[in-house]
This record gives sequence, structure tokens and C-alpha cells, in this order.
Amino acid sequence: MIPRYSRPDMVAIWSPETKFRIWFEIEAHACDALAKAGVIPERAAQVIWEKAGSATFDVERIDAIERETKHDVIAFLTHLAEIVGPEARFVHQGMTSSDVLDTCLAVQLSRAADILLADLDALLAALKTRAFEHKDTVTIGRSHGIHAEPTTFGLKLAQAYAEFERCKCRLEAARADIATCAISGAVGTFANIDPAIEAHVAEAMGLTAEPVSTQVIPRDRHAMFFATLGVIASSVERLAVEIRHLQRTEVLEAEEYFAPGQKGSSAMPHKRNPVLTENLTGLARMVRGYVTPALENVALWHERDISHSSVERMIGPDATITLDFALARLTGVIEKLVVYPDAMTANMNRFRGLIHSQRVLLALTQAGVSREDAYRLVQRNAMKVWEQGKDFLTELLADDDVRAHLGEDEIRDKFDLGYHTKHVDTIFERVFGES
Amino acid sequence: MIPRYSRPDMVAIWSPETKFRIWFEIEAHACDALAKAGVIPERAAQVIWEKAGSATFDVERIDAIERETKHDVIAFLTHLAEIVGPEARFVHQGMTSSDVLDTCLAVQLSRAADILLADLDALLAALKTRAFEHKDTVTIGRSHGIHAEPTTFGLKLAQAYAEFERCKCRLEAARADIATCAISGAVGTFANIDPAIEAHVAEAMGLTAEPVSTQVIPRDRHAMFFATLGVIASSVERLAVEIRHLQRTEVLEAEEYFAPGQKGSSAMPHKRNPVLTENLTGLARMVRGYVTPALENVALWHERDISHSSVERMIGPDATITLDFALARLTGVIEKLVVYPDAMTANMNRFRGLIHSQRVLLALTQAGVSREDAYRLVQRNAMKVWEQGKDFLTELLADDDVRAHLGEDEIRDKFDLGYHTKHVDTIFERVFGES
Amino acid sequence: MIPRYSRPDMVAIWSPETKFRIWFEIEAHACDALAKAGVIPERAAQVIWEKAGSATFDVERIDAIERETKHDVIAFLTHLAEIVGPEARFVHQGMTSSDVLDTCLAVQLSRAADILLADLDALLAALKTRAFEHKDTVTIGRSHGIHAEPTTFGLKLAQAYAEFERCKCRLEAARADIATCAISGAVGTFANIDPAIEAHVAEAMGLTAEPVSTQVIPRDRHAMFFATLGVIASSVERLAVEIRHLQRTEVLEAEEYFAPGQKGSSAMPHKRNPVLTENLTGLARMVRGYVTPALENVALWHERDISHSSVERMIGPDATITLDFALARLTGVIEKLVVYPDAMTANMNRFRGLIHSQRVLLALTQAGVSREDAYRLVQRNAMKVWEQGKDFLTELLADDDVRAHLGEDEIRDKFDLGYHTKHVDTIFERVFGES
Amino acid sequence: MIPRYSRPDMVAIWSPETKFRIWFEIEAHACDALAKAGVIPERAAQVIWEKAGSATFDVERIDAIERETKHDVIAFLTHLAEIVGPEARFVHQGMTSSDVLDTCLAVQLSRAADILLADLDALLAALKTRAFEHKDTVTIGRSHGIHAEPTTFGLKLAQAYAEFERCKCRLEAARADIATCAISGAVGTFANIDPAIEAHVAEAMGLTAEPVSTQVIPRDRHAMFFATLGVIASSVERLAVEIRHLQRTEVLEAEEYFAPGQKGSSAMPHKRNPVLTENLTGLARMVRGYVTPALENVALWHERDISHSSVERMIGPDATITLDFALARLTGVIEKLVVYPDAMTANMNRFRGLIHSQRVLLALTQAGVSREDAYRLVQRNAMKVWEQGKDFLTELLADDDVRAHLGEDEIRDKFDLGYHTKHVDTIFERVFGES
Repeated sequence: MIPRYSRPDMVAIWSPETKFRIWFEIEAHACDALAKAGVIPERAAQVIWEKAGSATFDVERIDAIERETKHDVIAFLTHLAEIVGPEARFVHQGMTSSDVLDTCLAVQLSRAADILLADLDALLAALKTRAFEHKDTVTIGRSHGIHAEPTTFGLKLAQAYAEFERCKCRLEAARADIATCAISGAVGTFANIDPAIEAHVAEAMGLTAEPVSTQVIPRDRHAMFFATLGVIASSVERLAVEIRHLQRTEVLEAEEYFAPGQKGSSAMPHKRNPVLTENLTGLARMVRGYVTPALENVALWHERDISHSSVERMIGPDATITLDFALARLTGVIEKLVVYPDAMTANMNRFRGLIHSQRVLLALTQAGVSREDAYRLVQRNAMKVWEQGKDFLTELLADDDVRAHLGEDEIRDKFDLGYHTKHVDTIFERVFGES
Repeated sequence: MIPRYSRPDMVAIWSPETKFRIWFEIEAHACDALAKAGVIPERAAQVIWEKAGSATFDVERIDAIERETKHDVIAFLTHLAEIVGPEARFVHQGMTSSDVLDTCLAVQLSRAADILLADLDALLAALKTRAFEHKDTVTIGRSHGIHAEPTTFGLKLAQAYAEFERCKCRLEAARADIATCAISGAVGTFANIDPAIEAHVAEAMGLTAEPVSTQVIPRDRHAMFFATLGVIASSVERLAVEIRHLQRTEVLEAEEYFAPGQKGSSAMPHKRNPVLTENLTGLARMVRGYVTPALENVALWHERDISHSSVERMIGPDATITLDFALARLTGVIEKLVVYPDAMTANMNRFRGLIHSQRVLLALTQAGVSREDAYRLVQRNAMKVWEQGKDFLTELLADDDVRAHLGEDEIRDKFDLGYHTKHVDTIFERVFGES
Repeated sequence: MIPRYSRPDMVAIWSPETKFRIWFEIEAHACDALAKAGVIPERAAQVIWEKAGSATFDVERIDAIERETKHDVIAFLTHLAEIVGPEARFVHQGMTSSDVLDTCLAVQLSRAADILLADLDALLAALKTRAFEHKDTVTIGRSHGIHAEPTTFGLKLAQAYAEFERCKCRLEAARADIATCAISGAVGTFANIDPAIEAHVAEAMGLTAEPVSTQVIPRDRHAMFFATLGVIASSVERLAVEIRHLQRTEVLEAEEYFAPGQKGSSAMPHKRNPVLTENLTGLARMVRGYVTPALENVALWHERDISHSSVERMIGPDATITLDFALARLTGVIEKLVVYPDAMTANMNRFRGLIHSQRVLLALTQAGVSREDAYRLVQRNAMKVWEQGKDFLTELLADDDVRAHLGEDEIRDKFDLGYHTKHVDTIFERVFGES
Repeated sequence: MIPRYSRPDMVAIWSPETKFRIWFEIEAHACDALAKAGVIPERAAQVIWEKAGSATFDVERIDAIERETKHDVIAFLTHLAEIVGPEARFVHQGMTSSDVLDTCLAVQLSRAADILLADLDALLAALKTRAFEHKDTVTIGRSHGIHAEPTTFGLKLAQAYAEFERCKCRLEAARADIATCAISGAVGTFANIDPAIEAHVAEAMGLTAEPVSTQVIPRDRHAMFFATLGVIASSVERLAVEIRHLQRTEVLEAEEYFAPGQKGSSAMPHKRNPVLTENLTGLARMVRGYVTPALENVALWHERDISHSSVERMIGPDATITLDFALARLTGVIEKLVVYPDAMTANMNRFRGLIHSQRVLLALTQAGVSREDAYRLVQRNAMKVWEQGKDFLTELLADDDVRAHLGEDEIRDKFDLGYHTKHVDTIFERVFGES
């Protein structure tokens, strides 16, 4: 995580202040349940809320205690006792550190997921707006970077919309996977604490109870969460790469918004570079890079070892903050993307007619030519366009072997652009439920 | 994929014979729909099924054609024409290669997922059986590899059961994600083929129609699929590592079944090594290793480039075959695992009484001692056990500061094992729905 | 590893036949040394070479024995005894399986490295030839996909040459790292076998003796080897991506050779796609994907566990075969690359004059204009070219503020292409030692 | 990077202050060379050093300018102009931003490598000291976690020493790979700046000149650097895992130093956990996780795109800071490691005599028994020890088939521990050059 690629709401989730506040809430809710169960005095639970419910925890003081005890939860509890007084001895009864740490992480990751889901909603909204705006903006579709057949710019954005809607579904599933609470004691047996306490805390913190924990919440949940972020980042990269291609000098069908005052190059004043989407490409690499450490975290030893902890202290913030930033940046890019329909048309017509080669091929086969012969006939004329700059329609009309099977009108009819866009509404209906 | 780590059913999914059979079915079903739509003659669709419906495609012949055309689908279609005759010219009308390739991959991955789901069912069954068998087999729980508090071996297996049940849910979601059909033409616009054809083929092949494709089915779907396999493999590793630990010479609480005639070492005849679970650890690394290439496959250029293809030709088989083998091997290990309850008891009692330290700590705090003081009192006696081999109960009873707050019976009561297993039924109910 | 992406020499290194042959050589050389040391009869060592020195080992028979013993080296030794007779009992004296397995792997990886080094030599030769051919072929340099300043196509290839020369150095270092022999017994103490045996076998097999082994050769060596392959694969990808960009329809400055008879698309006969370099992009992902499993293999437990074995059985062949294929394919692409200098010129001149913006900027500052003012002056005219299609030179000549500092000749002088290529010889000298 | 896992010297390398200081030095040294070449006035170069040579750059001011210009180098140059005055217009003549950025990164990574090399020296020193201290401390060697044959604890540390010495060599090579300077202009042609400037700056900054750059220093260099860090981190993990195993309750042959006042568990006062080495295991996962993004950075588009930048802004600090912290922590663990030779002996003797099984096997074969028969004889007795707790020596002496070939003294002789340590000096000589 570095400030350059961070947004404050997501950063706040990972601050020590937020963490200690969540720790407190977990402990205090547990005290409520313990009091209700008669394990600790009701008054103790009340005092804890009264004295610390709106307190600000002193991060530096807790850090100082931790430097001595080398244990973060004990440091926090010691500081809490300084605030609460004698009733503090009832806090953390029968619990183990991981009960607090893991449940806190579940809260943090759930909140992070909520921000990311909102990010996805904003991105989806931007994509939808621009998709409808350019629903009928014809542009060339490309496979292998080579002109294929016409499509529309709106369809490109519809594809991205569908992809990020899938990403949203996956993230919702990953959020549910991660949002569990464990208050089950040293090895998960509830030996020193009743399962009812866990149930109470879970509900109070907006989580579900972990069906079976060891000392910790099992890390396959977290692995799935970070793997899902890696998939989303890869979808971010896909759209970013599309824009980078469209902005190339030779293509220039679309361009990132270039603010007045912005400088593209210290040396070359004319340059307007797709730096935002290039940046997104790099950020995607980072979020993907966090997936494998999360996967390696699953195989903890026995009921737990703490090797996962350093990984999560880093990738918890790093992955969520980076992806949040990336999604927001991508949304901005889409919202403000400068689209050049004229350039799209000009590029498409660069090899005039060649994009209609398949239609001619089909027409020939339907006129009774074998597929192999039709392919050779079409390719023969296509190569003249490609290599000698000829016009495809003219060449076809002049090819006796073609004309033996197709009349002039039939051939001309194959060069109609509307043919390619006739199902755009159908696809929009599928993707957006409207067209 | 190597034979040593392969099982035939999964291997068969990836054979050229299977692939060509699926290609044929896609093309033939498409012909049915094309005939129904009046695009090609009804008789043509019938002839295709009649002549090739039960044909065996000649893999070597197709390969030979591909060496000339350098295009696999064209090679197949050429061979199909050799079998079907003139009606073959109606095959593949308006379709593009990716329509066939991607829909075929969807079928293969779906079938692979079905095998893996069955593997998970078998593993879950084995885990459940052994979990109930050892529901009350008390063993020491360990955090950081250090004795913590008692648990039961059944609980360890229940944890694994819950984890693999989550894996199953994730795989079902990933299967649904991957099981789409695209018959949408060169850039996904249905220019040359009606969406109805796609709908027909999708249903015939047990897939859903891809809402919006480019030339290809978007690769975020596949990324999610392989990422899910990586998570499952990591869960395999977790259970494998648990068994490796339990089989260590100094622990030896459980052991992989050792067949008569098996040799552990060419040099040391006494050795019985956890080679199956070590092997699973390695296989997990491989399946995880395939995740990143799948993620990198998402950002194809424009409507598609073919960089994903080589990756999928390799990880399609490699990831599914390896995980299938790993799950089956793990199931066998669990089914035949030799468990030593006596050794579990002996290990647990190694530092007699120390595992009850927390209970004493809690009793002291409940007797009015501050948490900090209680911690110091308990640790002082615990360290004597640890460092001097003393008996924890004896030391506590002889500690005047402890006795000032707790009577002998109270102290002895904290050494009851049943205390730790009283919620096992509750957890089993949560995990298995029965106990 | 799949046949489609394999070449026979590299595949042969990983065949069972080769493996058993190497095993035999290790054992037989060890017998020579053991005989010389008086541990076993000299005659025994001779008999072993005589009877099995040119024998073909029966892979199926060995596999059959392994199915019973579940141990591959014991299976081999049993089969060897069938060939050699009673003297076979002197084979493998004091050795452990890993002595054979790890030393064999070192031989295989060294041989694989030799092929890869030869591949790199061939690639370097192709790059050098084409670099000199196009040393002075002026083309536009691009940053961010946007035109920057002129360079030459030869310089692009010189860059690739320098990069692959670095790759060669790295691979030589990785080869040296991997080429060690361990014949040190069950835990590396030489308890049952004298270090002299190891020294003899090492020399005979072209390896160096491992200074300290455990049971195995330490896996940091292998990790470094596979990490190096991952770096080389990434350099392959870089050059592949360059060519893919150059072949785009809108750029089309270079093209993969397109064989007569080759078909680019089943649907679109006009297409000529950069499928080889796209394929290389995918293969690079795979070779990179093998790096992390190799890194995870380092942390074996104690003196060894066997988790690395399954990984190496897969990535040993997969990584070396795939990279060998990729390097050879890339060499072919470079050798036959069709270069279009005219298209390079045409593209460069697309925004006539804009590429000279920096020179004008510098001239203005040298004429006393502040950097900030000069930047604004140049950008103001550049934007007219960019947005309105004006000619940069014309605009500058007509800009009074510019003309206040620069005369017409001075301005025209800044549009000389030779200015940009004057140091090409210097760079070629640096890279090739000649120009 | 998070403070918890950071050390100040490495953090300082990555501060904005350090970065701007290096930027200044690059620019100022370039001015010196430009002045010497007569491109800019000699006085200008002097003024730049005089006015800014010991200036503190105002990070907040530069950030503020960057927020407007959206370009970091321009922001810095603007601020530099505020300090230097009119002569600032001679700064950065003919250079491009990447000349500064990439050369700066080379300086930072070189300095980071120097710290890491010093870390490795400290670790090597600690390993050597403890290795000699425990050269003759006999302990059981384990393969698969199962007792194999005796070794010494010193040998374990010697192995680690040799491994980290290899790591040091690799890091020295990676440092050399990364330590290049590029001052070659917008596309690396030196169009606007003479190669002599680059040569001067390279020497002044302790770098070598990049033979051929594009706009940037090629990223295969950086990929190799970060891959090397990933290998080193994996070696850190290996030693960490060894210590974690040795500290397990059932093994307890060595233990991380446990400071007075430190608390192992909030719930269980008796616990002393290997938290430092578990932490190192997690940190190793992180450093490995940065390798793939670095590899993906290699394939930049054309002469450069900026996707690598965000990755390097993150992994530059993150990887070096984390590895620096990990190496220092590991050194501390080794220096203070508490070793329990008595426990090593006790564990070794747990299955009395079984560790000598191979010696008996060899003796039998040397007495004329076939290898297969000898294996069966030894295994038969070994299994009685394993399964029934018998004494291996006693059983062998009582086995008539064994006794038919070996006398009592011969058998007893095979149980001599000295047999296993006789080559320790040889190995120490190999590793340390002394014994």
C-alpha cells in the first residue's frame, strides 16, 4: 500500500484505530453474552461499555506495551484495563487471541468487500451509460490485433459490463465466505466459553458463526477471497489493455481524458499517453501477486501456526486498497473516455471491403460452391487487397469465377454494415435487461 | 500431466478422440438448428448425423491435414467432409473456430468439474466416517506446533469435512461459471448466425448461452475456475500436512497405511514414510502454479488473441488431472489411515497437566485475582514443568499464592478432560447435521 | 508438456530410457570407485559394465516391479540384478536413492540447459543478422504506444540481442548452480560411503561434488534454475509482444511469415494473424507459472521430504521442453520475419513533424526561452497537429512567438532524421562489438 | 511494507527525500558532463551544485506541483528551478524522465542489495559460529519426518551456511545485473544527448552504462533481481521451518530465545511458541509473491509503457524491506537459538538401534546375502521394534538367519555412533575452508 494508489475510506479500515475499535466491540459484545450467561457480572459488562464505549484507544501506548509483552492482544487488553479499571478482569474470559484477531479480520474484509462492491456498482453504471451512448457506434472488431468484422463500441462496453457483473457476483460470494465469527477458544472446542457467546458476537458484528474453527478461522476462506480479488484485477487489466490499444497513435479511436495543464512527457510536448490504463495494468499485476501467498496460507500446521499473520497484515490492506483504487480509477477513465467515432470508421475502411470477406464466402457456399473452393476464391481476392492495396468489391466483381456464382447485386449486398449490427439489441437485452 | 499422477476417466476427457467427438456434436447440433431455421437443408443435417454420428474420427489424418493448413478446426472440418461427403459444405455455416473450440472447452471443463465433485463427495464420505469413528478420541490440540489444549481427532476431521464442503460449493459455482456456450461468429455479433442456433446448441450440450461473447467466451470465467482449483489444492495440502506431522517419528499418532511388500527406503529397511501426503503437498504446488497463467489469460487483446490457447491446452488437462488424482489419493489416505489413540494419549500427557493451565488461570481470575497477577502465577508454575520436568498439579497445590485463592478440590477439578469435549456434539451437529 | 509444443531432443532427455541409462551410469561409476577403494571386488564393477553397459533397460518391467515395491530405485536395481546377475549385489552399496535420483536430475537439467544455451545461440545469431540488415531502417520509437522519436528497426533488434545475451549469461550461471553430484548417503554424512566415491562419479558425469548435501541436493539450486527459465520466458514474451504490435492491421510494419497453404481463419480468408508470437506469449505464462512451485520446493522438512519430487517430475520436462520450443519458434519468427520499411516510414510521417517536437523545445531553451515557456510554445503548436491535422513545421514557422527566438533555417534543421540515427554505430559497437 | 516488518536503513533508501537527492545528483552530474561537452555553460553546472548541492528538497511542495502537472519529474524540475534560479533551464537538457527515474531505481536497488549482502554476511557469521559450536552435537537426521541416521547439529547449520553463501553469490550477480545507468533520451538513441554524458553519470553514481536502452532500462534486469530475492526468501523459509520443527513439543531439540516478560499466549501461560520463525515463513511467502509481478513487467510495449512503474513503486520497497527484516530476524534467531543436546540424544535413542538398520543391511550383503534377502531380514526385525517396542540389537542377535551370516561382535560394531560422524571434518572443510 502506498498513498499514491490509496483512497481514504479503504485505508481507514486498516488503521490501528479501526482495528482496536473492532477488537473492543468484539470483547464488549462477548462480555454482554457472558454476563447474560451468568459467567461474569452484568454490571461488569455495562461498565466496560460505559468507560470504553466511546473511548479513543491510545495506539502509541498499546504499541509500547506490545514492545514489552511481544503480544498484541495482551497489549490491547492491558491498555483497556487502564481505561476500564478493575472490571477489565472480566474481559476476554475463556477467549483466545485469535478469537479477537480473526473475527476482526472478518469484519475488516467484509467492510473492504462492501467498498469494492460499491466500486463495482459505480463502474457498472459508467459502463452502462457509455455502452448505451455508443450502442450503435460501429467500429471494427479485431482478433489477433487484425481487423475481423464490424461490431459496435457499445458492444465492447457491454462485454465489459457483463464481465464486471460476474465479478460482482463472485465478490459477493467471497464476502459471504469470509464473514464468519469464531469465539471458540484455544483449539476451537469451546472448552472455556459457551457457543452461545460466539452466536451473540457473530450477530452483533454482522457475521455468521464459524461452524468449526480450530484456534483460527480456516484460511481457505481467505484464500478464496484474495483469489477472487485476483480475478477482478485481471478483468480490470483486460479493459485497461483495450483502452491502451485504442489510444495507440495508429489506432486512436479513443483516448483517456487529458486534463488541461497535464504534461505527457518532460521531453515531448505533443504526447498524450494512456498512463492511467497502463498504471491499471501494473496494479493488476500486484493484486494478482497477492493470490499465491494467500493460497500458501491455507496449510497451517495443526490447529494453527502464525505464518499467515504477516502475510495478512500486508495483503489485507495492500490487495483491497490497490483494487479499490484501481476500480475507482477505471471508473473515472470510462466516464471521461474520449471516443472518436470518425476514427473508428476511418480505420474500419482502411482495407476497403476486406471485412466483408466472410459474407462473400458464405454466399459462395450457399450458391453451391464447395467450402474449400469458396475459401480459395475469396482468399485470392483478399490477398490482392492486402498486398496490392486493391479494392475488395472491385476485385470480386471482376473475378469471373466469383461472378459465375454470384450476381453483382448479390455481391454488393454483402457489403452492408447494418448486417453486422442487427443483433445488438438482442445482446443488450441479454446483458442489461433492456436495449 | 504425467501418467504417474493421472486417472483414466479424467485423462479421457482430454483425449483428441473426445475433443473431436464434442466438436462434431457442436457442429451437428448447430446444423439441426440451422436446418430448422431454414438456413441449410434439413436433409443435410440428417446426413451429417447419419454418416458421422457414430463415426470414429481419425486423429492421425486430422493431424496430417493440420500440418498443412496450420489450423485445427479447418483440419477437422476437412476430415469431416471426407466422411460426410458434399453435405459437409453446410457444416460450420456462419460460425467461427472459437465457437467450436470454446464451447468444447466448456464441455470438457464441466465434465472435469463433475469428476472433481464426485471426488469431493468420496473424500467427504471418508472424512465423515473417520470423524464419527474418532469423535471422542481425545488428542492434544496444537498451536505453533506446541501443545495447547485437548481436542478430539474427530474434531480435526470434522474441520477438514467442513473445509472440503466449502470447496465443493466453490467448485459448483465455478462449474456454473464455466459452463457456457458461444455460437456468435467472428466477433460475437451473430452477423452470420442467428442467436437461436446458439440457444439450441447450448441446451443440447448441457450449457447456458453466453450473454455476450467477443470472438471467444471471456476468460475471467476460466480464471475463476482454475483459481478455485488452486484453493481446493491448498485445502488438500492442509490435510496432507496434518497427516505428515502426525506421522513424524516423535509424534506418531497416525500413519498412512503401509502395504505389505512396500519399501520405505532403499537404504533403511525400518522406514515407513508419509510419502503419499508428501506427494500431495507437491501436487498442490502444481495446481496452485496453474492459477497465475489462468489469471494472465484474462486480458486478451480486443475481441481475442490466441495467447490463452497454449496455456489452456496445458493447464486444462494438467490442473484437472492432477487435482483429480490428488483428491482420490487423499481419500484413500483418509480411508486407510492408521490411527493410534494410545499414542495420542501418551503425547498429551507428556507435560502432565500443563495443558490445563488456562483453566487454572480462569479460576484464579474468577476468584478475584487480576488477570495480570493470575497470568504470572500460572506461568511461574508452568515454567517449572517446562524447564524442570515437574508435575503441574503438584506445583500448583504447593504454591501458597495459588492456594490463597483456590482450594485443592477446585484445583483438581480443573484437570478434568471431559471439560474439553463437552461441546463436540454441538460442533458435529453444525458440521454434519447430526452427532 | 504436450507434443504440439515439444521438440524431440529435449523430450528425449526426459524419457524413462534416458533416465535409467543415467541411473545405470551413476551406479556403475560408483562401483568403479568402490572397487578402487576396495569396498567391492574389482571384477564386480567390470561385470556390471560388461553386462549392462550397452543393455536396453526394460521400462515396462521396471514399472511392473515398482507397482509392487512402490519404490522406483529399488525397482530399477531389481531389474538391473536380472541383467547383471549375482554381482548386482555390489551395486548401490552405501548409497541412498536420492544419490541416484538427484545426481540424475542434475545431469538431465544440465543437458537441458545445454540445449537451451544452443537455442539462445541460434536466436542471437538470427537477431544479429536481422539487426545488421535493418541497422538503418528508420522507424518510429513509441512510448506508451504513442509515437515518440525516430529510432531504427535494427536498434530494436539490438536491444533484444543484448537482452538474450544477458539471458544466456544467467542460464550459464544457473546451469553451473544445478550441476552438482551428491553421493553422500541417507543423511549426507558419508557414513556408509567415502567422499571419494562422490568425487569420482561427479567427474565421470561432468558435475561438481555437492559441498554439503542432506539426503538430497539442496533445492535452492533448482529454484534458481527454474526462476532463470522464468526470466528468459519473460524476455521471449517481450519480443513476441513487440512483433504482435507491429503486425496489427493499423501498424503493419512487420509480419510473421505466412506460409502458402496456411489459413488464418476458418471464417475470414483475408486474415493473417500473428499466431506464433501470440502462442509464445501463452507459453511464457506457462514457464513463469513453474517458478513458484520450484520456489516452494526449497523448504523441505529436515534432511528432506519428498514433496519436491512430484513437482520436479512435472516441471523438469514441462519447463525445459516448453522453453526450448518457444526459443526455437521465436528464432524461426525472427529469421523469417517480413519487414515493411515503407510502412515504417509512412507511419512515422503520419503526424508530420510532431516527432521533432523535443528538438524544437531544446532549441527554444538554448535560445534563451525558459523551459516552461518553451514547453508551452511547443505544446500549443503540437496540439494543432494532433487535434486539427495541421503540419507541425508550417505551424511553427507561422508562430510569431517561436519565430521571435528561432529563424526559419534553424527550425527546418530540427526536422532532420539523420539527427536521430547518428549514434546507431556507437550502440551497435556496444552490443555486438562491431558496427 | 509495514513498520512492524521494517528496518530504518532500508526504509530510508525508499524515502522521497532519498529519491529526490538521487534525482538531483543524476541531473547535476549530467550538467557537469554537458558543461564539459560545451552544451551548457560551465557556470550553470557550478551554480546548480552550489545552490542545490546541500539543499533539502521540499517533498510537499513537489507533491503539490505534481498534483497539477501529473508528472513527477517535471514537478521535481520545477521545484529545482525555484531553488536554483534561471540556470535551472540547463538542467535535464536532452534527457527524458526515464533517464532519471531508471538510473535512480538502479541506485536504490544497488544500495538495497548492499544492505541485503551485509545481512547475509551477518547471517553467515552467526551460522558459522553456531555450526562450529555444535559440530559434534550428534542428532538424528530425518527424512520424511522419520528418523533416518545420525548426523550432527553442526552439519545442519553448515548446510544452511552453504545455502546462504550461494544466495550471496546470486545476489551479487543480481546486483551487478541491476546496477546500470541510462541517459539515452526519449527512445534510447542519444539523439539529444551524447553517450559521453551517460558514461560520466554512470561512473559518478557507481553504475555501468546500459549498453542499449529503449526509453528505459530493460526490465529483465529487474525481473532477475526480484526473482533472486524470491530464492533467498525461500532459503530463509527452509531454515525457519527447520527450527519450527525442532521446537515442536514432541521434538524440542532447539528453541527460539524466549525473553523474560514475553507472553506466548493470552490464554495459555505455559506456551513458548516459535513465532519468529513462523513469521519468517509468512514473510517468505510475501517476497516470493513479488516475483511474478516483476516477471510480468518485462514485456513492456515497444520502447516502453509505464505499467512497470506502479509495480516497482510497491515491490521495490516491499521486497527489499521485507527481506532485510527477515534476514536480520533470522540472524537473531540463530545467534540466540537455545539448543538442547540432551533432547537430541534422547530423541535419537527413542527407537533404540533402529537408526543402524542400514549398516546391518550392508554388513549382511557384504557377508554374501543377496540384497533382497538382506533387506527382508533387516526389515523383519525393524518392524518388531517399530510395532512392538522391541530393542533392535537384541532382536538381531536373536535372529538365527542373521546370525548365520554375522557374529555378535560384528553386529554390535554396527551400532557405533562415531561411524556416522567420521566425515564431519571433511564436510566442514568443504563448506568453511576449515574444520
